Amino acid sequence: MLPWSADLAGRLDRHVVDSRVLRGNPLGDPHERPLWVYVPPGYDDEPARRYPAVYVIQGYTGHLAMWDNRTPFRRPFPELADEVFAARRAPAAIVVYVDAWTAYGGSQFLDSPGTGRYHTYLCEEVVAWVDARYRTIPERDARAITGKSSGGYGAMITPMLRPDVFGSLATHAGDALFEAAYLPGFPGLARTLREQYGGSYAAFLADFRGRVAMTRPEDGPLIEAYGYAAAYSADDDGTVRLPFDGNGELVPEVWDRWLARDPVRMAREPGYGEALRSMRAIWIDAGNRDEYYLDLGATAFHEAVLAAGVPAERTRFELFDATHAMIEYRYPLALEWLCHRMSV
Amino acid sequence: MLPWSADLAGRLDRHVVDSRVLRGNPLGDPHERPLWVYVPPGYDDEPARRYPAVYVIQGYTGHLAMWDNRTPFRRPFPELADEVFAARRAPAAIVVYVDAWTAYGGSQFLDSPGTGRYHTYLCEEVVAWVDARYRTIPERDARAITGKSSGGYGAMITPMLRPDVFGSLATHAGDALFEAAYLPGFPGLARTLREQYGGSYAAFLADFRGRVAMTRPEDGPLIEAYGYAAAYSADDDGTVRLPFDGNGELVPEVWDRWLARDPVRMAREPGYGEALRSMRAIWIDAGNRDEYYLDLGATAFHEAVLAAGVPAERTRFELFDATHAMIEYRYPLALEWLCHRMSV
Amino acid sequence: MLPWSADLAGRLDRHVVDSRVLRGNPLGDPHERPLWVYVPPGYDDEPARRYPAVYVIQGYTGHLAMWDNRTPFRRPFPELADEVFAARRAPAAIVVYVDAWTAYGGSQFLDSPGTGRYHTYLCEEVVAWVDARYRTIPERDARAITGKSSGGYGAMITPMLRPDVFGSLATHAGDALFEAAYLPGFPGLARTLREQYGGSYAAFLADFRGRVAMTRPEDGPLIEAYGYAAAYSADDDGTVRLPFDGNGELVPEVWDRWLARDPVRMAREPGYGEALRSMRAIWIDAGNRDEYYLDLGATAFHEAVLAAGVPAERTRFELFDATHAMIEYRYPLALEWLCHRMSV
Amino acid sequence: MLPWSADLAGRLDRHVVDSRVLRGNPLGDPHERPLWVYVPPGYDDEPARRYPAVYVIQGYTGHLAMWDNRTPFRRPFPELADEVFAARRAPAAIVVYVDAWTAYGGSQFLDSPGTGRYHTYLCEEVVAWVDARYRTIPERDARAITGKSSGGYGAMITPMLRPDVFGSLATHAGDALFEAAYLPGFPGLARTLREQYGGSYAAFLADFRGRVAMTRPEDGPLIEAYGYAAAYSADDDGTVRLPFDGNGELVPEVWDRWLARDPVRMAREPGYGEALRSMRAIWIDAGNRDEYYLDLGATAFHEAVLAAGVPAERTRFELFDATHAMIEYRYPLALEWLCHRMSV
Repeated sequence: MLPWSADLAGRLDRHVVDSRVLRGNPLGDPHERPLWVYVPPGYDDEPARRYPAVYVIQGYTGHLAMWDNRTPFRRPFPELADEVFAARRAPAAIVVYVDAWTAYGGSQFLDSPGTGRYHTYLCEEVVAWVDARYRTIPERDARAITGKSSGGYGAMITPMLRPDVFGSLATHAGDALFEAAYLPGFPGLARTLREQYGGSYAAFLADFRGRVAMTRPEDGPLIEAYGYAAAYSADDDGTVRLPFDGNGELVPEVWDRWLARDPVRMAREPGYGEALRSMRAIWIDAGNRDEYYLDLGATAFHEAVLAAGVPAERTRFELFDATHAMIEYRYPLALEWLCHRMSV
Repeated sequence: MLPWSADLAGRLDRHVVDSRVLRGNPLGDPHERPLWVYVPPGYDDEPARRYPAVYVIQGYTGHLAMWDNRTPFRRPFPELADEVFAARRAPAAIVVYVDAWTAYGGSQFLDSPGTGRYHTYLCEEVVAWVDARYRTIPERDARAITGKSSGGYGAMITPMLRPDVFGSLATHAGDALFEAAYLPGFPGLARTLREQYGGSYAAFLADFRGRVAMTRPEDGPLIEAYGYAAAYSADDDGTVRLPFDGNGELVPEVWDRWLARDPVRMAREPGYGEALRSMRAIWIDAGNRDEYYLDLGATAFHEAVLAAGVPAERTRFELFDATHAMIEYRYPLALEWLCHRMSV
Repeated sequence: MLPWSADLAGRLDRHVVDSRVLRGNPLGDPHERPLWVYVPPGYDDEPARRYPAVYVIQGYTGHLAMWDNRTPFRRPFPELADEVFAARRAPAAIVVYVDAWTAYGGSQFLDSPGTGRYHTYLCEEVVAWVDARYRTIPERDARAITGKSSGGYGAMITPMLRPDVFGSLATHAGDALFEAAYLPGFPGLARTLREQYGGSYAAFLADFRGRVAMTRPEDGPLIEAYGYAAAYSADDDGTVRLPFDGNGELVPEVWDRWLARDPVRMAREPGYGEALRSMRAIWIDAGNRDEYYLDLGATAFHEAVLAAGVPAERTRFELFDATHAMIEYRYPLALEWLCHRMSV
Repeated sequence: MLPWSADLAGRLDRHVVDSRVLRGNPLGDPHERPLWVYVPPGYDDEPARRYPAVYVIQGYTGHLAMWDNRTPFRRPFPELADEVFAARRAPAAIVVYVDAWTAYGGSQFLDSPGTGRYHTYLCEEVVAWVDARYRTIPERDARAITGKSSGGYGAMITPMLRPDVFGSLATHAGDALFEAAYLPGFPGLARTLREQYGGSYAAFLADFRGRVAMTRPEDGPLIEAYGYAAAYSADDDGTVRLPFDGNGELVPEVWDRWLARDPVRMAREPGYGEALRSMRAIWIDAGNRDEYYLDLGATAFHEAVLAAGVPAERTRFELFDATHAMIEYRYPLALEWLCHRMSV
């Protein structure tokens, strides 16, 4: 009963996947991963019917169990997604909730010697696992990926890297245009490290792990930037390279590695542009007061998508009145739109 | 497996209570309420043993299911509480998680014609329900109540109102010293109502209910203040009286009704002072950067408690380095302390 | 030449007044005070003509020399005022710039054993001094007073106290509705005193005087609140009584002394209401984002003025889009309006 | 008399210079410029004595008349400077206050087709003018330059560009390390332009000039960034190139022109490094809470200075507890230090 819980019209199966590629990951994070698969109402009644699948990924610091979190006067996304199908607002689909959490708070859904092979885990293991156990339409045109923030980032870059796996995407306030999204935070991090940790990230990490986490205002930004560096600019031996030095000055060779992962820059490369042109549907939105200026990133990515030759009618772009927080009510809109598009 | 979940050493039973006193409540909120009862490790092995009980209540906008919420790099309180007993840091106790949510976000654990009889629900129905079904020590000296924010408020005033029911308490950043905690927010509310709702709270409430809630920065403060008014200053017919007018000017006769519910003022009244003197243990803390100045409220309440004649050795007072948010790591400290005190 | 300076069409005479009533003031502030008198273009050409006079007073921490301050892309008020007359936007008037600075930053234009007799200085000494040396129309109907912030406060209360001296007024974001303007700041002050000065205002004052002032963020609010207390609630022997205690709790008997000086409350008293009804012109405005909620104070004062029986056509009320800062461009509007009204 | 004014022990002469190089400047700003020359106590008594000279320049939006501005509980720098010599805290020197204001708020003390030849004006015209009229020691070793913010920027780059003119420098919170100081602000500017001006800087400039300036919170940042672009990246025909596009994305070829003017980068170039090595004294400081992260810029510049081979004993570096504002009490410290160094 609301507000405490709600019954779903469909069914949410909670599994654990034993990942091969995450075994022995550099951070010692679990290789057994939760995976939730939602089947829409009617799934069990039509045993021959196959369904498109929407893969849902999370923002930084998110892990799968947080989809159960309840916030005041709101409902969790899995319930909102269920309503989309219960109310027949969109053609039925399977919804897959994927976990790519790490001890730094996230993986950016990339393979990295700094964190692990989360991109491969998602594209190879999870997709195959789901296709083997659920009546999906096991084709890229019947697969979409969607997420918010770092999840939006993953939703942008994963189909560019693997257009054979995903044929549609939706990004809500996804990390993009890194000089607007990330760079403005670097000076503050450099200052905090100087004032509180003798300029040493190692000192911060040791402190962070040895006490109650997130008690200091800078904990979040510091661990997050470190996690991004682990994802974007770790050396082959796992050494994490930071894009700024002790004074907050950019380290160009490292910053360039970050920019090579910027969805806006990627979209301009011919290979990735071709991948984008193959997409059936691309949803891009962000709040116009987003603290990380991801409205600018969304706009720039949208422009790059169009410049790559994607027909405007296959895209949906919107800036809405919001900050970066509390925008889960946007996700069902994209889910609905994607399901319609995949069914065309 | 962490971070997604953790096994408990004890057992958490999730019940639903069919409340008689909440039937027909003015807001039409459910009278069937979730109630969680935690029994410590060993409870089932010692069938004759009886335990003290700690009642846990929540802050504003909280409802019972939120105890399951998981936050980055942290663990939910029920797991932390379990650890207290698993690690034998305190004598074993039963922990009861009580829900007093309303459509306004809370009840302040009071009986009010504006919201419902949540005080009676807690003190009469819940306590009796638990005592009837669990091997508690059914005495006030073996009952404590604890909470944070509005839950801390409830933990202060409930034992003052019903010293026959509760003999110990802990308040973390509990609402107190209302001119510091509440009053500074009134001018901003008056301005928001003027600028966005033609000065009308009814217009806000209608708007708030008709759209996705909490999309506007002022949603939280506006609904919260209305809920407090519903708890502190509703007329017998349920009419909610606000303590400020359209210009933000105090309405003294309403504000006085609020002040009559201020734990600091209550503690100074002879009857409530007598109740406080009967307490076995009183824990009071708050973050020294609390946005609602509840460090000031905690200090003032502590001074009033001492002035009422409570021996210092039965109290524990601390200001710690924190804001109002993210302080659930403090709760196990009080839980442990209370369990020791109840066992003396 | 702009931006560095501008020639005036009229003439600004800079005097020093040797005040009798400020001699031996409690703070040891100078009794010799700067006084500027501006005469409009044509004053020297029409030696028989007499002029109405507008008295201009300043906000907290202001002293007379600050009227010369130049800010980026703006011009000082004395130049803007000169333009009103140079452009013949209003009937010619004399403009008198009065200094009521104290070592605390201001006097609220009141007589107080905590600061000195600034009300008497203004109403008795300055007015007489000007009338004796300039060709004013020496009547209350030909005298107006105007100011911003604490100057707006002075412009509200001075004519209520001395309707025989001033017959018109203008207040820009004037201090009013003290529970909205002042009270919300008290908890923060109490906390700062606790955290940084052992809870002692004396410790703050000693520190403040012994180092470069205004280097700490709290310096301004602390000295300002002390100055208000010196103006509103000093005992006969000069002891300054604060309206809140170490916990930020209101001290009712002191707070009541403040409220007795609140223009909103004053305007509701029969005697002051009668004074207001005698006014020829009352201008009230404030920015709708004023940090001290003086838009609420302005609204409440305006309502009280109307409730006192002042005809609406003798008032001018406006909320404009601004904060508390940088609103000197509003002053010429009121100056112009007052000059027209005094000439009717 | 304080707080309104103070008598100087020395003498401040207020001149107007008719500049040849500023005639016909692109913004139509005055070519007649105020210039203040301060001579220390005793100057007129020792007609044969010659003095070193310290040139003082201002931060963005500053113009010469603002040195007269008085702020609460503080004194203007010219009075503080006078005290240095009156109290014989340093060897006597002449202090020259130079104006380089433009209609955009400043010039960065550079020659630019976007604003005018302010670098030449300072190094050629002003220095010669002063040397011709005052008993300076007309040598680079007896000339220092000092300033704050954009004035600190000018104090860093002017001696690097013209080591033949200036032999010592002091920078307080000077613009440096442009990715920390400037770049973080670009996304917000792009957003503001999008939301309020249809993405057009021209639309902003037209609006800004057509109404009371600085009434909108974004006015300052927008005009300031435009002025920097006019100084750093104007084309030969005066066209101002912005370093970011409508989405806040960096325009590398323009941003590189900015970086070429970054004191940190300049200091690393051999030619400028040689200039720095020739300096007798280099003072670098900043507040450790500077909103523009100029503490990071100061640190990076200091490191670059040392890396260029400047002996540590000729430098003075300090981070102090302050923001970017209200730090004029630091200027006399540097003035004193420079005067001692120039006299060695």
